[in-house]
Amino acid sequence: MINKITVLEETIVKLAEAKKYASLRDLLATLNPADIAEAFGNVSDQTLPLVFRLLPKELAAETFVEMETEQQEILIRGFSDSELKAVVEELYVDDAVDLVEEMPANVVSRILAQADPDTRKMINDILKYPEDSAGSVMTTEMVELQGRMTAAEAIEHIRKVGVDKETINTCYITGRTHKLKGVISIRSLILADPEALCQDLMTPTVVAVNTLEDQETVAQMFSKYNFNALPVVDGDERLLGIVTMDDAMDIMEEEATEDMEKMAAILPSDRPYLSTTVWDIFKQRIPWLLALMAASLLTGLIITGFADVLMASVALVATIPLLMDSGGNAGSQTSVTVIRGLSLQEVEPKDILRVIWKEFRVALLCGIPMAVLIFGKLMLLDGQTVPVSATVSLALLCTILLSKIVGCSLPILAKRLGFDPALLASPIVTTIVDIVSLLIYILLISVIL
Amino acid sequence: MINKITVLEETIVKLAEAKKYASLRDLLATLNPADIAEAFGNVSDQTLPLVFRLLPKELAAETFVEMETEQQEILIRGFSDSELKAVVEELYVDDAVDLVEEMPANVVSRILAQADPDTRKMINDILKYPEDSAGSVMTTEMVELQGRMTAAEAIEHIRKVGVDKETINTCYITGRTHKLKGVISIRSLILADPEALCQDLMTPTVVAVNTLEDQETVAQMFSKYNFNALPVVDGDERLLGIVTMDDAMDIMEEEATEDMEKMAAILPSDRPYLSTTVWDIFKQRIPWLLALMAASLLTGLIITGFADVLMASVALVATIPLLMDSGGNAGSQTSVTVIRGLSLQEVEPKDILRVIWKEFRVALLCGIPMAVLIFGKLMLLDGQTVPVSATVSLALLCTILLSKIVGCSLPILAKRLGFDPALLASPIVTTIVDIVSLLIYILLISVIL
Repeated sequence: MINKITVLEETIVKLAEAKKYASLRDLLATLNPADIAEAFGNVSDQTLPLVFRLLPKELAAETFVEMETEQQEILIRGFSDSELKAVVEELYVDDAVDLVEEMPANVVSRILAQADPDTRKMINDILKYPEDSAGSVMTTEMVELQGRMTAAEAIEHIRKVGVDKETINTCYITGRTHKLKGVISIRSLILADPEALCQDLMTPTVVAVNTLEDQETVAQMFSKYNFNALPVVDGDERLLGIVTMDDAMDIMEEEATEDMEKMAAILPSDRPYLSTTVWDIFKQRIPWLLALMAASLLTGLIITGFADVLMASVALVATIPLLMDSGGNAGSQTSVTVIRGLSLQEVEPKDILRVIWKEFRVALLCGIPMAVLIFGKLMLLDGQTVPVSATVSLALLCTILLSKIVGCSLPILAKRLGFDPALLASPIVTTIVDIVSLLIYILLISVIL
Repeated sequence: MINKITVLEETIVKLAEAKKYASLRDLLATLNPADIAEAFGNVSDQTLPLVFRLLPKELAAETFVEMETEQQEILIRGFSDSELKAVVEELYVDDAVDLVEEMPANVVSRILAQADPDTRKMINDILKYPEDSAGSVMTTEMVELQGRMTAAEAIEHIRKVGVDKETINTCYITGRTHKLKGVISIRSLILADPEALCQDLMTPTVVAVNTLEDQETVAQMFSKYNFNALPVVDGDERLLGIVTMDDAMDIMEEEATEDMEKMAAILPSDRPYLSTTVWDIFKQRIPWLLALMAASLLTGLIITGFADVLMASVALVATIPLLMDSGGNAGSQTSVTVIRGLSLQEVEPKDILRVIWKEFRVALLCGIPMAVLIFGKLMLLDGQTVPVSATVSLALLCTILLSKIVGCSLPILAKRLGFDPALLASPIVTTIVDIVSLLIYILLISVIL
């Protein structure tokens, strides 16, 4: 599939450059909006408005939604008012909100001016919710039905209102003041006896989220319940909107990226890497680099402080990287596993003792063969004495044990205290383990040697 | 929401222990299968078959699918043949396949014996595809329509066959020998003029995957195209099955976990952490620990080899952790960013020079202030000489530059050579950077001091 798209991109760019607009129009009409947007990504800024105008109205709006922010801005700046109106009218409200959030203020006011008053009100309502809340990612275009409607009446109603709705696959039964009473799928409406009442067909226990719920929880509920859409309600259980599965997928992807970034000591960003400026990337990375640098100066301080103990033999110094690396690796294995488990809700804070006990046994299983290998290597290959070899291999075992215990308990404690566990991943764990394992090493040297 | 579920779990366990089965039956009937499965997770192995039998037939099958493998096995072993038949009959084929893949052989033969011949054939067909291929995750229960059907006829057909299908939201138009001709949503069928022909309503350009395509590609296509379902075809474009969005979400989650595990130097597993044995966790982790240990012995070898240069001053030795940590942190920031970009297809191998140029500038921006701070710290706080301070801060700058360049180019090169970029994340990058930056440090010391 991927090769086909690459070929398509080249064809589109070639046709556009050769100004073969009639052929290009015919070609574009057969394509999928996501593919067109990808191909348009390689078209020059001058050509973009020309080729975009070749798209039929509905396809144009669908393609527009799939494009990169930079290109959307170029297009809007080039649009006449009526062209802008045509695109904005075709957008679903949640896509319009995304657009408004990304664009600079002067472009936003043009967009809002072209939206019809109802749409403008919906956009403004959604914009009121805090970033990354369920309210901010919902759409307000869902189908509401009444409990006393028959299946046939409900389908008739959907036929009337469905064209403007983001999905008709899941509909909601509401009472007075939009109070949420049940959920019903288009599938059950179609398969049911046409005379059956919606209130008898609906599932009355509806899982819903509050508008202020974190979007991460929303995505977790989708993956737990396998919903097509999730209703969003206010404090009085009135239906305000729905989050659809495609948005939930985007959130999941976003949240996984954010976790990976945090685990790698990066402040999260929601822009794609290539369109983030060097300066912004710098700002994402420098705070942690500086903080961790300060921490590793501490390690240096310990080495300086105990120079008489450590510098007694080259072999003892040469082992420091081994201890630090192994501790770092063992710790990050554990912290990443536990953090991911927490975020998929496979591990919960109440499991902390079970997790520590498990990691303790894993650490022994991993640490003992490593310690034995190092002992053998020092004795046989390097011709070290038994006390030196024993000190190093014991220090290694302690480091592995320590790193696994720290690596599993810190993220769980963070979660329990209401912090994001992903912040307590390898870099912090490594730094703590570095310092403590160096101290253990020095202690062992002083005692044994 | 989460609190409510915890309370529910406790209520269910209490009612079960008190043998209040009638009340428990009424309570369970109002709940969502995913919540029941979660609550049953806390019920003892003896009680589980008793409470499971309280569920109405359809809810029982839906709950069964959501349960942990261990509990499914306990239930199946306790089922009579007719109970097993009842559950198996209610399962969708892809869920039955998952079950068959998880269970030990003697349980599998009982399951297959209770499935009706058609289902058994479908299960066996899907089992033939390689693990993690599109074929292995698809379901064969989709709705096929003919192009000459009118919208009304199509809906009538769906009413007849729909009850056994995993989804009716997206239907497929096929020709002779099931050749895929187009896709049509239930939405467009309902909203259309009842007399309109399917072949005029359908989208003729169908994005489909081959049965042997990797499941990761399948998930990427869902997030790109926002599909509800993706058709799976053979080499002759015959429709064999579909992958639905809930499965795509599971795949996405699985693939993100796998990437995180690889980045943390763990061999991936697809079992939840708490139900993986200590021995299995050990096997996931020890290979990389040993390999990375061997690599850091190399670092030790360099320190030993250049002991005369390094051990000349405690200050020089005490700086080694700073260099190694900073290099590791800077490198993992870059490698994780690039690996995630590659897996979301935001970065492609052809962008390698752009990425290196970007990372080079970021490395300068990050490295210069760090080097200046260290220079100042060594001069002002530690009272070191200018040559020593300059050597260390220059070594730091080189380390940051090196780690960012290695961190971004290795994953891209891996991708280009057909390997998994996630394998070239922090641990390997850190090890390489450790060794090279130590050599640079020694070189700088020899030249400057």
